[in-house]
Amino acid sequence: MLKDGWFYERSFNETFSMGWKVKKVLHSEQSKFQKIDVVETDAVGKLLLLDGKTMVSDLDEFVYHEVMAHIPFMVSRDCKKVLIIGGGDGGVVREFAKHESIQQIDLVEIDERVIEVSREFFPDCTSALDDKRVNILPQDGFAFIKSKNNEYDIIIIDSTDPEDFASGLFTNEFYTDVYNALTEEGIMMNQTENPFLDQYDIKSIYKNMQKAFPIVQSFTAPMSIYPGVFWTFGFSSKKYRATDLLSDKKNEMYKLERSLKWYNMDWHKAAFAISNFHKRKIGL
Amino acid sequence: MLKDGWFYERSFNETFSMGWKVKKVLHSEQSKFQKIDVVETDAVGKLLLLDGKTMVSDLDEFVYHEVMAHIPFMVSRDCKKVLIIGGGDGGVVREFAKHESIQQIDLVEIDERVIEVSREFFPDCTSALDDKRVNILPQDGFAFIKSKNNEYDIIIIDSTDPEDFASGLFTNEFYTDVYNALTEEGIMMNQTENPFLDQYDIKSIYKNMQKAFPIVQSFTAPMSIYPGVFWTFGFSSKKYRATDLLSDKKNEMYKLERSLKWYNMDWHKAAFAISNFHKRKIGL
Repeated sequence: MLKDGWFYERSFNETFSMGWKVKKVLHSEQSKFQKIDVVETDAVGKLLLLDGKTMVSDLDEFVYHEVMAHIPFMVSRDCKKVLIIGGGDGGVVREFAKHESIQQIDLVEIDERVIEVSREFFPDCTSALDDKRVNILPQDGFAFIKSKNNEYDIIIIDSTDPEDFASGLFTNEFYTDVYNALTEEGIMMNQTENPFLDQYDIKSIYKNMQKAFPIVQSFTAPMSIYPGVFWTFGFSSKKYRATDLLSDKKNEMYKLERSLKWYNMDWHKAAFAISNFHKRKIGL
Repeated sequence: MLKDGWFYERSFNETFSMGWKVKKVLHSEQSKFQKIDVVETDAVGKLLLLDGKTMVSDLDEFVYHEVMAHIPFMVSRDCKKVLIIGGGDGGVVREFAKHESIQQIDLVEIDERVIEVSREFFPDCTSALDDKRVNILPQDGFAFIKSKNNEYDIIIIDSTDPEDFASGLFTNEFYTDVYNALTEEGIMMNQTENPFLDQYDIKSIYKNMQKAFPIVQSFTAPMSIYPGVFWTFGFSSKKYRATDLLSDKKNEMYKLERSLKWYNMDWHKAAFAISNFHKRKIGL
């Protein structure tokens, strides 16, 4: 996996590479689903790899996890029940658990070993997994969602790239199942890849979302360890737009956001005013 | 320079790397100031390197050049005269030249060879260098600025990293000279590096700007070819804030922004609502 003490991830059809100098390989295993490695780097601290792709680092895990949780929380009118598909590192659970009004957080992660390895090497991320509101369900999210109807206020798709067993999580069939599993004012959030090094056809992903949801919006937040860094995220909603922050929750959030590392409400409202490039790439 | 047909740029004290597969080396020379290379890549098209650092690519040159020019233009009340220090690729000149009300654009580039090489390999960038309002001045910007007083409405610092002959362009002395060279409502724009892989101490750069200017703000735009991609930019102003867009110019900009690849006024207004991370890193 290492070359002269460096880990490299090649992407965009093997034409672009990002690499990190590795101090030490902390863990390596082949689970039932994928290869799981944890390396200690100089630049980004501990780094989790699944099948040789960067997933989570100490340096910037807060960006992804905070935006995925606090944006839909602030828009959802009465958020009691949350579902996270993927996200075995626990980071998104941790952020939702900061809101006392949430009663239930279901985490559906296909690979239990990702959770166990994260508990060992990323204890900050997994710190809320033993919260009594959290249910860990080691199942296939694609199958799980089909059995649910009008149940969750927010559903987060915290997936890997549209390849192998995660490819189903980018289809219209799946987004329609998510729509049905949501309550009538429900919100879906998902990661939607890098539009500069557009190897997965982002426009078709957004088309699939638009077929299922009446409101589809997009924003960007940097993921320093992902290929090309400039990362887009989708906000798909049955009723409220992403900038319709619920005023009842603002006092709670003013207190919380001081302790957050990325999210604040001004940034949230601004994040959906996107560049011409971003609009054209996703076709919105 | 190449390794197995790839160009790699290592940064952040040699702990992080970005690489591009190279189809062909189009040009290599040692100028009086630096090594200048142009390579043809699969991922980002033609790529200009100065001393082995990525400067401009076909894929994303529009991002940097549009934000540097159109943001200050929309805030400046009566912008007649613009100075660009560095920027020998001509991209920022091209964007300012789209505004007919600008009467003079001075380009102070220390290395004439950068301009000549850009004319040959990046003709889109250099397309406005022969506009009759443009003066190309092959001089040291640090010395040039000292001779100017109350002369320019906008000054753009389009520099390389704070190393070698560019390091002076990040000092309080230089920012004070820029302040004096500006008219009384003048605006300075500069690139201020990546706060995740913060090898140049961004906070000290912003402190230097704040000592010279009463208003200092920051925003981010992605530069896919720069180390870590997540790039910050500074907006330093004598009178107006970055979100005070001049209403007289809005009709002109509504027409222009349809043809721009990145900039639009909604994005401009939103870009200055920055994340907690960004605020803390720059100390604003």
